[in-house]
Amino acid sequence: MSNKINRQIILAKRPSGKPQPADFSLVDASVPVPEEGQVLCKTIFLSLDPYMRGRMNDGKSYAAPLEIKEVMTGGTVGQVLESRSSNFHEGDIVFGSGGWQVYWASEGKALRKIDSQLAPISTATGVLGMPGVTAYTGLLNIGQPKKGETVVVAAASGAVGSVVGQVAKIKGTRAVGIAGSPEKCRFVTEELGFDACVNHKSPDFTEALKNACPDGIDVYFENVGGKVFQKVLPLLNDFARIPVCGMISHYNATELPPGPNLTPLLMRDILVKRLTFRGFIVWDFASQEKEALTQLATWIQQGKLHYREDIVEGLENAPEAFIGLLEGRNFGKLVVQVSDHPAA
Amino acid sequence: MSNKINRQIILAKRPSGKPQPADFSLVDASVPVPEEGQVLCKTIFLSLDPYMRGRMNDGKSYAAPLEIKEVMTGGTVGQVLESRSSNFHEGDIVFGSGGWQVYWASEGKALRKIDSQLAPISTATGVLGMPGVTAYTGLLNIGQPKKGETVVVAAASGAVGSVVGQVAKIKGTRAVGIAGSPEKCRFVTEELGFDACVNHKSPDFTEALKNACPDGIDVYFENVGGKVFQKVLPLLNDFARIPVCGMISHYNATELPPGPNLTPLLMRDILVKRLTFRGFIVWDFASQEKEALTQLATWIQQGKLHYREDIVEGLENAPEAFIGLLEGRNFGKLVVQVSDHPAA
Repeated sequence: MSNKINRQIILAKRPSGKPQPADFSLVDASVPVPEEGQVLCKTIFLSLDPYMRGRMNDGKSYAAPLEIKEVMTGGTVGQVLESRSSNFHEGDIVFGSGGWQVYWASEGKALRKIDSQLAPISTATGVLGMPGVTAYTGLLNIGQPKKGETVVVAAASGAVGSVVGQVAKIKGTRAVGIAGSPEKCRFVTEELGFDACVNHKSPDFTEALKNACPDGIDVYFENVGGKVFQKVLPLLNDFARIPVCGMISHYNATELPPGPNLTPLLMRDILVKRLTFRGFIVWDFASQEKEALTQLATWIQQGKLHYREDIVEGLENAPEAFIGLLEGRNFGKLVVQVSDHPAA
Repeated sequence: MSNKINRQIILAKRPSGKPQPADFSLVDASVPVPEEGQVLCKTIFLSLDPYMRGRMNDGKSYAAPLEIKEVMTGGTVGQVLESRSSNFHEGDIVFGSGGWQVYWASEGKALRKIDSQLAPISTATGVLGMPGVTAYTGLLNIGQPKKGETVVVAAASGAVGSVVGQVAKIKGTRAVGIAGSPEKCRFVTEELGFDACVNHKSPDFTEALKNACPDGIDVYFENVGGKVFQKVLPLLNDFARIPVCGMISHYNATELPPGPNLTPLLMRDILVKRLTFRGFIVWDFASQEKEALTQLATWIQQGKLHYREDIVEGLENAPEAFIGLLEGRNFGKLVVQVSDHPAA
């Protein structure tokens, strides 16, 4: 391996608000040498996900912040180049937390083998990976959709939202998406089979959302926050459930929105409508991961679950793609193709 | 009954902000004549509760608003004067929704017989009534306190808060109260047995609350909102549960608090700490009412559950007492003694 050079994207400095290209740095590094029990992998696909924005900040969250000069965090699909773990062999395709780099060494137990016969291996970053499991477990455990109810999800053409709405449909509910362009809305209804999809950038968004939910909203899967959340709130039915999964519209915020402070209105709605808000991250349902992946794969094979990927070529383009993700410029699950498959 | 005059307190006009005495009117009315299946009662005790403030407003809530000139809503302990229901007899002591008046007719099925041997009959408005059941069902169903955890409740010397903290103690948790005076705090720790109680009017409230919760907060039973809520929020532990029962600090508000809008901070905490907020009203757990009342009565008889009542004499003093309730001037469950017991 000594003649190989690793390429990495590291956190150059902490963003103030919207990340800039200069907050990232593309550097050369050595290829790691796997220790006993470890596996050396070459990245084929790097997953880009909104949670990464939080890691770039200093301060407490559910995971420790990245250090300056640390390789950016990220889930990766890779091929095993060298194995010192009895569970993996050269050539295996695996999913792990390789980060934004070409070569990475990982403990074998932190890797999941990917069956390339089941679906394209890139789906391990999306519908058959963390976003799919997030959607499945959050919707079913917290949202608890019942037949005939209405389920609303924003970023509906994205990695999580697209699965939320399709699982909601499978469970017999009315699924309403919110997305950021007419093209995305068309995809959400025509390709994914949602009952309706509303463009939040449209001037008549409030009215259109209301019309799309004639019986109100029973489950709102929250992954955006901001204006969309404020428009959803009045439409929530008594006893509605709100799995709180993310709030991408706030991730780049450098200050709080201006007043008045609307918190009392939210608390009043929680009380009067007896709403349930519950935050979660995918790890909270780790024991259900296998069941979720099996079920999602089955639905894909049965043609009941569709997905769309937005694949960007080249590790060097990851920062720009990630900046676009936070602005909704991607269309489908955002993935960076870092090297060819199979890796050489 | 024709020689008797009924006295009523009606809603004279809708309050703007804090209710004023002129928003109420004391009027004479006729004594109702019970129809078949109905019972005529004379009020002994009238319960005053924060939820009544909401009924004085126009606009949608979980119950319809009062009409102007309608008798103020309220739970009442009364004695049966005349029964046209086979389930009740003259002289029975009953609890019902008599409202702010001396005489009332009620369907028999809307009444609950009170066992005066169990506890003073006034407790049917408090620890052995709606507030007690609210505390019991909200804490156990939503708060789900576990041994060794920390439970915090505000208005801790009041009808609901006092039961929340004592049930929390019985369940093996650390119970921390918040109250509005040193006297109330002393009562909460010395008489009710909470582990600590913090005065929210004290200048060192923030620090004192933190010190009272060295292991953070696992359950916050929300009945006040406002400043107390904002100080509790940073102390909540991962996976904390927040039964949302009321927000008395906002009931008299005529406008929203000034900015910035703190909603994104609340949503971020829900997400990152995986909090559960769930609103409820006592009716939501109607099927558990009997169990709750039996258990609460048993604890009273065993000396494990204490209560304090703040009894005001005379129906004509109900408005002033109610205005004081919204400002925390009462000390214990606020009850108006409308007539002597037994009623003549």
